[in-house]
Amino acid sequence: MRVMGVDPGLTRCGLSVIEGGKGRQVIALDVDVVRTPSGDPLHRRLLVISDTVEYWMDTHKPDVIAIERVFSQQNVSTVMGTAQAGGVIALAAARRDIDVHFHTPSEVKAAVTGNGNADKAQVTAMVTRILALQTKPTPADAADALALAICHCWRAPMIARMAAAEALAAEQQRKYKATLKAKAKAAR
Amino acid sequence: MRVMGVDPGLTRCGLSVIEGGKGRQVIALDVDVVRTPSGDPLHRRLLVISDTVEYWMDTHKPDVIAIERVFSQQNVSTVMGTAQAGGVIALAAARRDIDVHFHTPSEVKAAVTGNGNADKAQVTAMVTRILALQTKPTPADAADALALAICHCWRAPMIARMAAAEALAAEQQRKYKATLKAKAKAAR
Repeated sequence: MRVMGVDPGLTRCGLSVIEGGKGRQVIALDVDVVRTPSGDPLHRRLLVISDTVEYWMDTHKPDVIAIERVFSQQNVSTVMGTAQAGGVIALAAARRDIDVHFHTPSEVKAAVTGNGNADKAQVTAMVTRILALQTKPTPADAADALALAICHCWRAPMIARMAAAEALAAEQQRKYKATLKAKAKAAR
Repeated sequence: MRVMGVDPGLTRCGLSVIEGGKGRQVIALDVDVVRTPSGDPLHRRLLVISDTVEYWMDTHKPDVIAIERVFSQQNVSTVMGTAQAGGVIALAAARRDIDVHFHTPSEVKAAVTGNGNADKAQVTAMVTRILALQTKPTPADAADALALAICHCWRAPMIARMAAAEALAAEQQRKYKATLKAKAKAAR
């Protein structure tokens, strides 16, 4: 499974592509950070990000996109820009019929370091070790994008099992309701 | 000047197109609300919104897009969706080289009702009167989209004057610095 990890942002947007193999095997294929000047109008910055992300999707042909889920407890204006960037990235995936999954920062940290409150240095160190990279990925956004893709590779089987379990439960509930309805009809 | 007003949102996204004439003259050309099912995945919902907005842009060929600026003091998850929808709309404009302006809800309310704290009923009533509509636009998102476009039509001359004044000030500052530098050089 080929996963593209995206740490969305207007000033710096981290992008990575990872190939997930058997078990916990992961291989880094590409990593980079897109930057847009903070003085540019918002719609121009979104266009640069969208064009770059679309180029990556068309070049690397990922099976799934893992995007960091933003929360608004941080700086308000930064969060808005991050959400807007995340929106155009999800849109680019939808246009190509690529599945999109969101992971929270703590899910990502927990997946790669075993600690949901790990700091940036720990995440970078674990990403470097897991992918057997010769140098540490910098800036932090590049490491975060790699961590997101690793997180998705490792959580994907669990996400698939949960989706299957939910579908099964929904199907059983539907059958149960149909049985009840049939019984009520027969009793009338 | 043809203005497209957008009240961004995932569940309901208000769209309007208005033609601004001399002075305060405004004519409504179109208004509608795009809806996407809340059960659908985010990237699918963004795609529906983007496709509709792109169709509107290509059909009505607006000169400028006025989008409501979102703040995160409201419900967190709603605000994230609104920002993501706003992002894909700004992107669609950037792809067509259409200018984008953001107006805050209070700027819009102040422009159409004279009161930055006006309620939804007041905004709808004033929009109906200003555009001489035969019926009130519903839902509120449709009225908001019209109010946004009216707001932009009326604020545009002021925004242009401010941009011109800022450009002039920057030019004068540049000249002044050049003079200072020349003097310092001559004094050496």
